[in-house]
Amino acid sequence: MLSGSTTLIAHLGYPTHTFKAPLVYNPWFESKGIDAVVVPMGVEAANYPDFLRALFTLTNIRGALVTMPHKVTTTELVDDLSRAARVAGAANAVLLREDGSLYADQFDGTGFVRGVLRKGFDPRGTRALVVGNGGVGSPIAASLAEAGVAALGLYDPSAGASAVLRGRLEEHFPELEVRTGSADPDGYDLVVNASPLGMDDHDPLPVDVTRLSPATFVGEVVMRQQFTPFLRAAMERGCAVQVGTDMLYEQIPAYLEFFGFGTTTPDELRAVSLLEDHPALGETEDPTS
Amino acid sequence: MLSGSTTLIAHLGYPTHTFKAPLVYNPWFESKGIDAVVVPMGVEAANYPDFLRALFTLTNIRGALVTMPHKVTTTELVDDLSRAARVAGAANAVLLREDGSLYADQFDGTGFVRGVLRKGFDPRGTRALVVGNGGVGSPIAASLAEAGVAALGLYDPSAGASAVLRGRLEEHFPELEVRTGSADPDGYDLVVNASPLGMDDHDPLPVDVTRLSPATFVGEVVMRQQFTPFLRAAMERGCAVQVGTDMLYEQIPAYLEFFGFGTTTPDELRAVSLLEDHPALGETEDPTS
Repeated sequence: MLSGSTTLIAHLGYPTHTFKAPLVYNPWFESKGIDAVVVPMGVEAANYPDFLRALFTLTNIRGALVTMPHKVTTTELVDDLSRAARVAGAANAVLLREDGSLYADQFDGTGFVRGVLRKGFDPRGTRALVVGNGGVGSPIAASLAEAGVAALGLYDPSAGASAVLRGRLEEHFPELEVRTGSADPDGYDLVVNASPLGMDDHDPLPVDVTRLSPATFVGEVVMRQQFTPFLRAAMERGCAVQVGTDMLYEQIPAYLEFFGFGTTTPDELRAVSLLEDHPALGETEDPTS
Repeated sequence: MLSGSTTLIAHLGYPTHTFKAPLVYNPWFESKGIDAVVVPMGVEAANYPDFLRALFTLTNIRGALVTMPHKVTTTELVDDLSRAARVAGAANAVLLREDGSLYADQFDGTGFVRGVLRKGFDPRGTRALVVGNGGVGSPIAASLAEAGVAALGLYDPSAGASAVLRGRLEEHFPELEVRTGSADPDGYDLVVNASPLGMDDHDPLPVDVTRLSPATFVGEVVMRQQFTPFLRAAMERGCAVQVGTDMLYEQIPAYLEFFGFGTTTPDELRAVSLLEDHPALGETEDPTS
């Protein structure tokens, strides 16, 4: 129950009706007796810089979850950024540090990587293909680089998106082999759909699944349904997979650690979450909305 | 449960640990299935003007409850003010109107007057003494004037506070008889302690109770204990009384109407309130904190 001693985590984005985080964090805070709350706040892009500044003058704010359309802008509004956020060119968490400065990190990619690790796939030294190099694919690529992949394939219908991401990866990870321009999954140990393909039933598949090896691990960010057509096709070929909501539930423990609330597990979160019954689920491909 | 469709009412003040409103409003919203939440936000005075402006750029905000130290400043930051707020020189509620403008009103006094009316005391045509002409006494005096008292006695250890309030009352209620400078309760139909006297057990009584008529109705704003020494002394003389928390519970229906959430009764609020068990109760004389 909210009171004058409650610590606030703002959830910033627009529109708000697809927000998922409050439906997972708040039941967990309650189950743990933690006096904190995630408060959904709808902020349009034009108002975001002023709002963010004002928000962090509150005396009971600890941080913010940031979702669309503010993830890129946030990198320009804080005092310090993690390497993953620099490479992603986006941030989805802001922490008010004790000295009053704002520090931002990104956890979309963290959630993806934690998920595949939990499933026994260690990205270290592997070759990974990220299809979709925008707001979700860039953080995933950044976190895969942090996790030690040997090579990253980047593909986006917008070649410019891939080129920008490639430039940032090469700047921060000079040893990493980066390829762009092809969505051919052949030869990759890990293939990730980080594009919106799969949101609509009539979407084409993001890659040519006939070129997928059964040994390839396949990840998905779309969470409109548990098993998208892409995941179903990959499973038919014998691939191990990770569903879209895993990325959401896996990143929350990382967020909680970032904000200083301890940690938890995806299973514990799923046990208390109110998300599955809520229309917000799946209306956006953004796992942190 | 908070979600992306939840309407926010900000609760603005500093410090926050004495905030009472979330402990009453939120259980009531929940009991009624209303998708709204009062969010405590600690704002220091220097940050308040910028924060208030930024707050009302949110897409899911409807209004704000305003408490110390911002009630006076608020009157200078909104587009329009109720007459009661003008007379009080203070506002404790801000509504974002459909046209985007901000309208402020005050409900401290409203709550007091609703309470005495419910107890059968109609202020119309009566003589009322308000002891303490600061942040709580001024709104009570304004609402008593709105309710049609014939004469108002004002007393404050700071003669300047009484003089300022008197000036505003005379401007907006030219027919009203206003007296200042004496706390003698003799001859009044209604006597209100709107001073902090009673917060501490060793405080003197706010008026000389030996001069109280048994026919005088006596009201209190201090809510540190249900029956303050002043109320107990008045009851011993046979006076009807109103306790401090009545003012809180009586003003909430008025607030809910102002924000467009329908209405309720103090009894219904008390039935769901979590306030009585909470340390916030009574730590301040401000009934809207």
